[in-house]
Amino acid sequence: MADRPQHLAHLAHLEHLGDATKFSQQIHALIPRCNLLENFSPAEVRLLAHFMDVYQAPVGVEIIREGEGGDFMLMLVEGKVEVVKRDRWNTPQVIAVVETGKTLGEMSMIDGEPRFATCVAAEPTLIAVLDRENLARIIVEQPMLGAKILMELVLMLSQRLRATSGRLLQLMDEQSHRAANLL
Amino acid sequence: MADRPQHLAHLAHLEHLGDATKFSQQIHALIPRCNLLENFSPAEVRLLAHFMDVYQAPVGVEIIREGEGGDFMLMLVEGKVEVVKRDRWNTPQVIAVVETGKTLGEMSMIDGEPRFATCVAAEPTLIAVLDRENLARIIVEQPMLGAKILMELVLMLSQRLRATSGRLLQLMDEQSHRAANLL
Repeated sequence: MADRPQHLAHLAHLEHLGDATKFSQQIHALIPRCNLLENFSPAEVRLLAHFMDVYQAPVGVEIIREGEGGDFMLMLVEGKVEVVKRDRWNTPQVIAVVETGKTLGEMSMIDGEPRFATCVAAEPTLIAVLDRENLARIIVEQPMLGAKILMELVLMLSQRLRATSGRLLQLMDEQSHRAANLL
Repeated sequence: MADRPQHLAHLAHLEHLGDATKFSQQIHALIPRCNLLENFSPAEVRLLAHFMDVYQAPVGVEIIREGEGGDFMLMLVEGKVEVVKRDRWNTPQVIAVVETGKTLGEMSMIDGEPRFATCVAAEPTLIAVLDRENLARIIVEQPMLGAKILMELVLMLSQRLRATSGRLLQLMDEQSHRAANLL
């Protein structure tokens, strides 16, 4: 990791603590609450840590911003983050609070689309960042580790999609039920 | 593919046309309308086809059923499929119509959870099936192909999750707006 990736300019306002190698024990301790790492061995966590960078965010600081680019995901190594999205009246609404061990921003890492929501540190927060370029390097240099990460990402997205689709259909049902009652 | 996978018992009511190798040209022709294959070369399609099985479904036949197990995904090689889900009153509702080239069932292939919806052939339909065991074999035997498939799956799920989350939040906004108007 001699060169700092250019696009981590998005995180230039945070304190950069170097690559995640020296945090690999702390990251390994996240396994029980981290979907991404649930099937990782200590050796795999150390290997992955080589490809991640750690940043520190003070309370109240935006880590990622809705609508911005940024092809990286982050893992909460310490702290807590509020996920905020603007509603149709442009008012920021807290849509989730994310705890240590969780990951954020996987979708933009993969598809490069603008961020879906803003993440703000709700406590002093340490994040480990994996960007698309390093994910691509892992796939080439450590294909089994790459497949494992991708498999976990597919699993996580698939579970979120099930939950979100379920809620959407339920809400649509309720609406049509209400509409029927008004007829 | 000497042994037929046991769990393809789920598809025993369909005509099994063997592995997908002899359909690889037809599958390759799907690329312009198939997200999963969008970055595949003809050689990669042929390689993938070795790990897939093709089945034929007549009109009106259920291919996968909501709530059932089944750790495979399918690609529509020919034909059209209606996606049907039961609403809260247990009434089947068509929630999507899926055309040739599209894929279905990725979530259950990955997470093994029950199917989210039922798929019924709306035309005479040819499907190519990839199950979790063969995906695991691809990852071990052809890691770059495996990573490519997983990457495309992550991309597809991520796009669907964005779209679904967007619709959910919009609906929630509308509801809170209506509620506010009633106050």
